[in-house]
Amino acid sequence: MSTELWARTIEDLAPDIRAGRVSPVALTESVLDRIKQHDGTLLSYIHLAEDALKSAQEAEREIRDDRWRGPLHGIPVGIKDNYTTGDMPTRAGTEVPGFSFPREDANAVARLRAAGAILTGKTRMHEFAWGTVTPPTRNPWDVGRVVGGSSGGTGAAVMAGLCTAGMGSDTGGSIRIPASLCGTVGLKGTFGRASRAGVVPHTWSLDVAGPLTRSVADSALMLNVLAGFDPADPSCQDRPVPDYTEALGQAVQGLRVGVCRNHFFGRNQVEVENAVEEAIRDLAAQGMTVHEFKIPNLEYGLGAIFAVELASSTAYHDVSLRDGKTRHFEPDVRSLVELGRFVTGVDYLKGEQLRRVLMADFRKAFEEVDVIVAPTTALTAWAHDAKTLEIAGEQESVLAASWRLTYPFNLTGLPAISMPCGFDRDGLPVGLQIAAKPFDEAMVLRVAHAYERTHDWAARRPQL
Amino acid sequence: MSTELWARTIEDLAPDIRAGRVSPVALTESVLDRIKQHDGTLLSYIHLAEDALKSAQEAEREIRDDRWRGPLHGIPVGIKDNYTTGDMPTRAGTEVPGFSFPREDANAVARLRAAGAILTGKTRMHEFAWGTVTPPTRNPWDVGRVVGGSSGGTGAAVMAGLCTAGMGSDTGGSIRIPASLCGTVGLKGTFGRASRAGVVPHTWSLDVAGPLTRSVADSALMLNVLAGFDPADPSCQDRPVPDYTEALGQAVQGLRVGVCRNHFFGRNQVEVENAVEEAIRDLAAQGMTVHEFKIPNLEYGLGAIFAVELASSTAYHDVSLRDGKTRHFEPDVRSLVELGRFVTGVDYLKGEQLRRVLMADFRKAFEEVDVIVAPTTALTAWAHDAKTLEIAGEQESVLAASWRLTYPFNLTGLPAISMPCGFDRDGLPVGLQIAAKPFDEAMVLRVAHAYERTHDWAARRPQL
Repeated sequence: MSTELWARTIEDLAPDIRAGRVSPVALTESVLDRIKQHDGTLLSYIHLAEDALKSAQEAEREIRDDRWRGPLHGIPVGIKDNYTTGDMPTRAGTEVPGFSFPREDANAVARLRAAGAILTGKTRMHEFAWGTVTPPTRNPWDVGRVVGGSSGGTGAAVMAGLCTAGMGSDTGGSIRIPASLCGTVGLKGTFGRASRAGVVPHTWSLDVAGPLTRSVADSALMLNVLAGFDPADPSCQDRPVPDYTEALGQAVQGLRVGVCRNHFFGRNQVEVENAVEEAIRDLAAQGMTVHEFKIPNLEYGLGAIFAVELASSTAYHDVSLRDGKTRHFEPDVRSLVELGRFVTGVDYLKGEQLRRVLMADFRKAFEEVDVIVAPTTALTAWAHDAKTLEIAGEQESVLAASWRLTYPFNLTGLPAISMPCGFDRDGLPVGLQIAAKPFDEAMVLRVAHAYERTHDWAARRPQL
Repeated sequence: MSTELWARTIEDLAPDIRAGRVSPVALTESVLDRIKQHDGTLLSYIHLAEDALKSAQEAEREIRDDRWRGPLHGIPVGIKDNYTTGDMPTRAGTEVPGFSFPREDANAVARLRAAGAILTGKTRMHEFAWGTVTPPTRNPWDVGRVVGGSSGGTGAAVMAGLCTAGMGSDTGGSIRIPASLCGTVGLKGTFGRASRAGVVPHTWSLDVAGPLTRSVADSALMLNVLAGFDPADPSCQDRPVPDYTEALGQAVQGLRVGVCRNHFFGRNQVEVENAVEEAIRDLAAQGMTVHEFKIPNLEYGLGAIFAVELASSTAYHDVSLRDGKTRHFEPDVRSLVELGRFVTGVDYLKGEQLRRVLMADFRKAFEEVDVIVAPTTALTAWAHDAKTLEIAGEQESVLAASWRLTYPFNLTGLPAISMPCGFDRDGLPVGLQIAAKPFDEAMVLRVAHAYERTHDWAARRPQL
């Protein structure tokens, strides 16, 4: 494992920073050098913080003065461009002029700052989070490949060491898809676990704020800071926040691994399916029992999430539609926002009703299992110009395939993580998805950490 | 006060029934006689229970055997025709063939039966609860006038002694409007307080199940039975249920009465406005303080509730639209159900978002007040053929005027009661509306009871 500062995890750095063995300034310099060196190619940032080094110096002073704030103190963190920031502009991925987002910290940003994190800048995203590609960001494992999206800038930056951890947001898979395609860990908590106040909305009833990191433990450390009540987000729930690091290292023997055999399997790239099947065998080898089941109603999920996302994002862009700004959106995003006008209230309600049905189906499934394990994406990172690919013997749109396995956990609001579970023959990472009951992020992290301990996938770094 | 059994309240009857001084059979016979005598004119029932007397005999036996179930034991209760019942057909107010509703008791019906109530029959309602008139039911105070709706059959039956209490449902005012126009008490609890499982849906996010009664205490007794968790209704909340009768008779001195001066005042019939102003003075005379405020966003409420109701009811009737059944609906209901197809998802979401805004506005108002007091309806019962009336100097559609003051408490989900607070020069009752914070039905009942104690409005009975 590389000992270069930019390549280390929070978990690994924090004790050294606290003890004065690692300087936050040196760490930040290492990350900024890395950005200078590689972001001309990767294009993971849209804006760099001007005062990152100054913040690092301040952190260093505080720690020297025995005012260590916690594990994120002095850690360089990249922020997806749909989180508003007091000291940096916010564009939510659009280049269309005329949008003006508040110049104040989103709740998550304020929490990270209060925890002592060093904000490195704003990372690139698919315009208004409406897509799974993040043009023009390049994948650190193969710059000819996409990074996934919409939190693609964060995915690339975290993997390539252009920050130690980063923020994403997930409406239909936007944290987990770039995590899968870039080989990072990406955690979408339960809907309502963390505040979205200050995150430019995509779909109010689906959007989740969460981290991308380089280890499961790092996701637990980030969630410790992000989780909690905020009255400014009407969906944010007032529930106790456990210390998520307590889930790490706990025994998994006897836990029940659920495998939903329809929808999630049988339409994936062979190497994806093989890697995930092997991961399931590995969990079984650790003493977990495997339970197979089916949720036939997932067949209707795509229509439901499309109706809900289209209507919601179009409601958000209603003013822009009327004043003509959407004409200047990227063609793919413009189509979706304009198409959303034709979703009826009835369509929307039927989508929401299917969500209730699926929540009940998954609740029933979770009577028999502790986690559900599946691939995160049906395919590994595709070439920038690919529109369709052959997957399991059929030509399929890469966009359709990209979120098929992630959106069920948005429709149901369940917590789900993506973590690497192997690499395909092209050296591209394969993502393993682990979901649990509502507000049981601790269970997700416990099983993910147990898997991670027995593999070195997360420690691999791309050659740049 | 009449001592005839059919004219008495639950509060008054229950101790006598328990002690064997009043026979449930005699009470039920008195009510059935009353139905025989007057329902040919009033048309409050669509179906009469065949076994009411048998149930009353059973209740009488149980009570004689020292198995008194509680205050509803042996009390004749009418059920709105949108509650499914195991022993009676359900039509939800429609005469169109081809609908088949489950032949099983709705949760509320099962609770009433378990509490020992004698079901008298199914009461008439506006077709699918989509209106505020309830044709052809006639108002006991003047048979040339409407009863309001959609729970109009229950309103007429409760007032005229064709049952002792009854069930209604309230989506935009459907319990409180007939309560106001018929002079009964009508209680819409907080959204989520009582189960709607088995109530034919109008609008999932607004529908509330609740009682119409002849006194505030009777509403408390009914709510004691109806309130509580039911997993079969996804909106029903799992919260403790207090004994609502404990709120009755509690001191009100020092409580703060809120009066929202916009929206609720200035566009009412003069006698309505005068009666409510006098009621506010009466509450002040009992030591309550009066606080005036405004909620300007109520201006947008009508658009919001229309968007939400239209989209939701049309989603419910989607299959009927497709198979042509809606062509046979009553013209007013058919128009609304067909119109609902043109509500977009964006319209619906903007309606839901205004609800959030109004909830926040009312939450803020409730920082300064304990209850909000207003008229229930801007007008008293209108003639069957009236389409518009002059109200406060302007011609207005009676339908538009009828629910203007009730729907704000549906949009916000707040508990609200209607109770009589006077009679106009034509001898028609005027309704007083009292609302409180979410799940504070006890406060509603406490203030309503304090008002009722000092007036005899609720004791008046129409000459039939």
